[in-house]
Amino acid sequence: MAEKIKRVVLAYSGGLDTSVILKWLQVEYGCEVVTFTADLGQGEELEPVRGKAQMAGVKDEHIFIDDLREEFVRDYVFPMFRANAVYEGLYLLGTSIARPLISKRQIEIAHEVGADAVAHGATGKGNDQVRFELGYYGLDPDIKVIAPWREWELTSRSRLIEFAEAHQIPVAKDKRGEAPFSTDANLLHTSSEGKVLEDPWEETPDYVYSRTDNPEDAPDTPEYVEMDFEHGDAVAINGVALSPANLLTKLNALGKTHGIGRLDLVENRFVGMKSRGMYETPGGTILLSAHRGIEQLTLDRGAMHLKDELMPRYAELIYNGLWFSPEREMLQAAIDSSQAGVTGTVRLKLYKGSVDVVGRKADVAYNLYSQDVVTFEDDAGAYDQRDAEGFIKLNALRLRLLGRRTR
Amino acid sequence: MAEKIKRVVLAYSGGLDTSVILKWLQVEYGCEVVTFTADLGQGEELEPVRGKAQMAGVKDEHIFIDDLREEFVRDYVFPMFRANAVYEGLYLLGTSIARPLISKRQIEIAHEVGADAVAHGATGKGNDQVRFELGYYGLDPDIKVIAPWREWELTSRSRLIEFAEAHQIPVAKDKRGEAPFSTDANLLHTSSEGKVLEDPWEETPDYVYSRTDNPEDAPDTPEYVEMDFEHGDAVAINGVALSPANLLTKLNALGKTHGIGRLDLVENRFVGMKSRGMYETPGGTILLSAHRGIEQLTLDRGAMHLKDELMPRYAELIYNGLWFSPEREMLQAAIDSSQAGVTGTVRLKLYKGSVDVVGRKADVAYNLYSQDVVTFEDDAGAYDQRDAEGFIKLNALRLRLLGRRTR
Amino acid sequence: MAEKIKRVVLAYSGGLDTSVILKWLQVEYGCEVVTFTADLGQGEELEPVRGKAQMAGVKDEHIFIDDLREEFVRDYVFPMFRANAVYEGLYLLGTSIARPLISKRQIEIAHEVGADAVAHGATGKGNDQVRFELGYYGLDPDIKVIAPWREWELTSRSRLIEFAEAHQIPVAKDKRGEAPFSTDANLLHTSSEGKVLEDPWEETPDYVYSRTDNPEDAPDTPEYVEMDFEHGDAVAINGVALSPANLLTKLNALGKTHGIGRLDLVENRFVGMKSRGMYETPGGTILLSAHRGIEQLTLDRGAMHLKDELMPRYAELIYNGLWFSPEREMLQAAIDSSQAGVTGTVRLKLYKGSVDVVGRKADVAYNLYSQDVVTFEDDAGAYDQRDAEGFIKLNALRLRLLGRRTR
Amino acid sequence: MAEKIKRVVLAYSGGLDTSVILKWLQVEYGCEVVTFTADLGQGEELEPVRGKAQMAGVKDEHIFIDDLREEFVRDYVFPMFRANAVYEGLYLLGTSIARPLISKRQIEIAHEVGADAVAHGATGKGNDQVRFELGYYGLDPDIKVIAPWREWELTSRSRLIEFAEAHQIPVAKDKRGEAPFSTDANLLHTSSEGKVLEDPWEETPDYVYSRTDNPEDAPDTPEYVEMDFEHGDAVAINGVALSPANLLTKLNALGKTHGIGRLDLVENRFVGMKSRGMYETPGGTILLSAHRGIEQLTLDRGAMHLKDELMPRYAELIYNGLWFSPEREMLQAAIDSSQAGVTGTVRLKLYKGSVDVVGRKADVAYNLYSQDVVTFEDDAGAYDQRDAEGFIKLNALRLRLLGRRTR
Repeated sequence: MAEKIKRVVLAYSGGLDTSVILKWLQVEYGCEVVTFTADLGQGEELEPVRGKAQMAGVKDEHIFIDDLREEFVRDYVFPMFRANAVYEGLYLLGTSIARPLISKRQIEIAHEVGADAVAHGATGKGNDQVRFELGYYGLDPDIKVIAPWREWELTSRSRLIEFAEAHQIPVAKDKRGEAPFSTDANLLHTSSEGKVLEDPWEETPDYVYSRTDNPEDAPDTPEYVEMDFEHGDAVAINGVALSPANLLTKLNALGKTHGIGRLDLVENRFVGMKSRGMYETPGGTILLSAHRGIEQLTLDRGAMHLKDELMPRYAELIYNGLWFSPEREMLQAAIDSSQAGVTGTVRLKLYKGSVDVVGRKADVAYNLYSQDVVTFEDDAGAYDQRDAEGFIKLNALRLRLLGRRTR
Repeated sequence: MAEKIKRVVLAYSGGLDTSVILKWLQVEYGCEVVTFTADLGQGEELEPVRGKAQMAGVKDEHIFIDDLREEFVRDYVFPMFRANAVYEGLYLLGTSIARPLISKRQIEIAHEVGADAVAHGATGKGNDQVRFELGYYGLDPDIKVIAPWREWELTSRSRLIEFAEAHQIPVAKDKRGEAPFSTDANLLHTSSEGKVLEDPWEETPDYVYSRTDNPEDAPDTPEYVEMDFEHGDAVAINGVALSPANLLTKLNALGKTHGIGRLDLVENRFVGMKSRGMYETPGGTILLSAHRGIEQLTLDRGAMHLKDELMPRYAELIYNGLWFSPEREMLQAAIDSSQAGVTGTVRLKLYKGSVDVVGRKADVAYNLYSQDVVTFEDDAGAYDQRDAEGFIKLNALRLRLLGRRTR
Repeated sequence: MAEKIKRVVLAYSGGLDTSVILKWLQVEYGCEVVTFTADLGQGEELEPVRGKAQMAGVKDEHIFIDDLREEFVRDYVFPMFRANAVYEGLYLLGTSIARPLISKRQIEIAHEVGADAVAHGATGKGNDQVRFELGYYGLDPDIKVIAPWREWELTSRSRLIEFAEAHQIPVAKDKRGEAPFSTDANLLHTSSEGKVLEDPWEETPDYVYSRTDNPEDAPDTPEYVEMDFEHGDAVAINGVALSPANLLTKLNALGKTHGIGRLDLVENRFVGMKSRGMYETPGGTILLSAHRGIEQLTLDRGAMHLKDELMPRYAELIYNGLWFSPEREMLQAAIDSSQAGVTGTVRLKLYKGSVDVVGRKADVAYNLYSQDVVTFEDDAGAYDQRDAEGFIKLNALRLRLLGRRTR
Repeated sequence: MAEKIKRVVLAYSGGLDTSVILKWLQVEYGCEVVTFTADLGQGEELEPVRGKAQMAGVKDEHIFIDDLREEFVRDYVFPMFRANAVYEGLYLLGTSIARPLISKRQIEIAHEVGADAVAHGATGKGNDQVRFELGYYGLDPDIKVIAPWREWELTSRSRLIEFAEAHQIPVAKDKRGEAPFSTDANLLHTSSEGKVLEDPWEETPDYVYSRTDNPEDAPDTPEYVEMDFEHGDAVAINGVALSPANLLTKLNALGKTHGIGRLDLVENRFVGMKSRGMYETPGGTILLSAHRGIEQLTLDRGAMHLKDELMPRYAELIYNGLWFSPEREMLQAAIDSSQAGVTGTVRLKLYKGSVDVVGRKADVAYNLYSQDVVTFEDDAGAYDQRDAEGFIKLNALRLRLLGRRTR
């Protein structure tokens, strides 16, 4: 807290924690606070946030409430899904992918309003502090960063509420006690962690889920959906063209109904510990499956295998908060270069928690699957089986030389 | 067919195709045929094969029928699952992993009986010819290989049956017509491809599935299962210790009941074409999920991420038939070295096609998850949140230097 | 030889071998031959080739002699050097990188003259046949390919010469006997292999070298050279701007004088065998060293390490003839995306076979080296040493949790 | 300095800096200091260190001076060279590889003497603090670590010397001023950095080099050397079997004479900055070249290419101080598994800064190079050139399907 701060842009949700932070910044740093609230599809009404900020003394021109949903899906979610990115085999990176956009807009606002600092409400044990701050520093190397949770003395719930009350911050009744778990939400997913979820042997209680119906309560009849892709990105559902955010919203609705996209995970945080989280990514789970489906038909083997090998690294970079890094951009360039021909239609079956690709087709300009070549029937010379002998012989040559030695 | 062959070991199923091959080898090569039939858990009674071979004139001491199920699961399936291997993101390699064991035993028999050649019934368009032959050549660089499907004139069903009839090979009525698709089965999976499956837009007809119940017909109530792992391998189900093959058999039964492990895939063959296949891997699908679950708790992050990066290459090697290659052995050594501490118990929920890890626990000697460190509650100094600032600052340093430049 | 060919474009050097091939194609295939001769800087006068082709009956409009030197260096050599590509740790890929350009131009000519086939003079044991043909097929999937060395009966030197004499092909006196080794040359390198070089224990005789002076005969005084780079490519030597081909030519002269770029290598061919070759890459060796030198100052760590990890694969793809493949293009996109800021000047010392970077500098807009930060002197707060503690603590956390377990 | 320390093991060189640290620990922490001095071949007499420690009040049984040279080369240097490890394309990791052994022995001593802390003299900007401390924490998760340079107030040379004089620590005359650069030395290398070397455009002055003669002063006649390898490790020079440390010592003498192994590098530190260093690795440079030479003949292609792809990661792990990490052990297991057959003899030419492999041979039990197969002469059927056609055709198939689409 030694540094002198003039004006700080705070990532502000309007909830209790960031409301306390807002006040704390004013009190402790004696600085002007600018609030930034992003609509990333978390599903909450954001206008009330304006009033809260005003009440806290933030100037009108210093209250930023931005709808970033289309930018989020178009420039962050979709590029990531081109890579079929999953972290540690399972996690669809729903929180990780939202952080760089928040950082970017926050730094832009800092430049607009002439702020010398930014602040966030992420704790000192999590990944999000890293993601926010690597974003900040990468986009503005001289920005000052305030992370109250690593600094202040309000380390227990009761002290936080005490501070709130001492500073006339309204505390909703249901926020007085400790929440049984902590959540993050955006258009791609909802995550929950902490408290009741901390024992990795205990099954996640049903009340934790908010974005997906229980598969056991899902319809008894499967639903079929068709998705169109162009150059690697989804563009339509059941023949209806949709903007990126609208498309993901529609997929979320489908996924919710069929109980798709729940994940109970123990993962490795960048800060070095294992944590247990619960994720719901209804639309994203469908999208990942569909994208793999269309790639099966339209992506060359060499490209697909290289993508598969690069993917874990790419996912790790996003997880670790390195979206704005040269190496993520290098991998993105590689991935994007592979997607030009990933155009076609996938047919999916949704049923009680499962999503399965059951069909895929593509225009002849994109289709790499050749029934003529692969057929069990007479292929009219499309493939000469005798070629296989030479192929095998030369692939075997080094092994034979090796075998000759080791006998 | 120019080469003079004295004695050949044929991978012999007793079915029509390999029965024709047996005769054709005797007729065309004028050589002695030794038959080798492996029980890999394909679920067929193998003793009748003996009679067929005898009828075809194979000497008793030249008829080999071996139960390889335990060896298959212990030395091939389990090592592969330590890697969480999937090909092209989805395929559990059920066919690929069986081929090297067949090759190995076939070469062993060739050496036992003094044969100078081996033969198999794989076609000239598929991967299996490659897998068999790379195995043969790697294990015996001087062995001669006969691949009748690439050589002979019996290129249509009718000519094959004509040959059979001309040589008194019994042809079952239901084998007279073309099969609507072709299958391969072993303890790990059943695959189907060809004919009715060749149009990748058409959903796989229900009658193709043989190893799994339709998820829609599966029980309406989830079933919970506990699996114990030791050093990376599954050793018990619901507290009952089982041998590798028995364990996989048990998992298959569970998976079948709950409709788990169906996969409709368009994949890239090593020989350069795309093909569409349908796979059923009931037990393997559960095993993969469970193995990832126990690794979550007991595997270090550095090891897990390296494994994830190596996995696609490892899977590709197995798919391409390079099990007996130095690079597969190198990767296996790396993978195995990571599994010493992968010991503990996973709790799984099976329900209508889905398998979900819902709990995992491990003895303190193996558990890397520390509730003390990760907790949202007071951690009594187990983790100093101020460390995060330095961690972020130094991770950001290069990005700041870069950002300073690019502004 | 079964296929009916109408018109074939032959990669034609004018030497004995391709002259025999020209005639053999006319005789055996009864087809019209179009010749294509590329100047890739191999250092031979190419106009005489025209007369030879005319004498063999090739129509004037079917004789193509193209100077491809600038295209070669700009579009093939420079992109490859952006990757610091070396095959098997040492080989600068001088032959490999020339093949795709030849293939590409050959296919273009085939389309211009309406040819249905292409032919080359590479043998059936080498990599070049693969490189040519993968290029052909990738650029024109329906082209027919004739590889005489794999087809014809002229398998000994004497039969080749017999054929030449029978068809009035002039045979230079020094071509009557077998050459003591075989060479390939272009602006990037000269390679030699075969015959006297086949024993890998024997030192390469001095007369094999043609592009570099013996280091022992090189000047006793080092020479210093400065090279400027822009966006990853060399653009000037000692302050003089040069076109790509002129720049490489100048580097070759410098390298020759100082005996730089000799390599004696046993390498693994794509076709499965080991071979021993001798390479001279005088200018390329300097260029590689200089490029690494400027990257040291201007390339971010994340980008550099990713490049280093991708490089062996990239080099392997070029070696194997997969320049025109999606995966090479993906890697190129990644590599190129890293080079935007690789701009600055390198100072090199050339001395008796060695090239050493002894200095590098870059404009502040490109320089990532910060003396302020790194200095042993007082850094005026540019770096807070206390950050290191947190950095280490969190990097150590997983190892401590692991250590706690394994004690 | 808050923590109460009872007894600390200090990595003690006997030089001014660690002598000050010794005293400072006694004064500031009021704790007992145990000194540990390792002979890693840095080329200094270590017995005088005993007297200095005694004078500083360290008990005799708390003074540890260990000759670790053989262990260093056998268990650290040789395993690393099996990987052909170089960091950022050039650096042979001479400092990095020594740190884990020091950490390991220091922790062992801590356990022997019942110490609760360890201390080192590395600064807060460098990599060595990370390497030491990751080693400490990995081997003893509960050890306390004291890094005086990050803690104390002695941040300038003059204050350090003031402290020394105030505490009767003898200061040699030539240590009164600032050293013109800082060095680290062991049997593998000497590094120099800082001060006069901080401007990366300035050539390293000749007086900085201490382990290699100037190539310009090296003999005018090349020297030939033969090295024998067994299972990946060097075992003899010119037919004389030598222990690991003696072998490296001998190579160092050869390299020194011929001016081999100088490197001027700008590298990326783990802590996020670029630094400029000068390295001399005379014997290691020869060893790397020789090891690659014997691998050329005896290592399979698949193994070699996988090794080359894994190497940058492996080198990065060592550079970053992660020797004692599961992922380094995984990579080591992979690398070691490849070296069983790396046995044979390499012939090298040393001349004025260069080391070139000019010959390599191996027993038939290890040699993978087959003159019979590769020969330009008649190969008596060892290789069927017609196999190449099928090999190319099937490798081209996917590219043709792709080309058909993209036309």
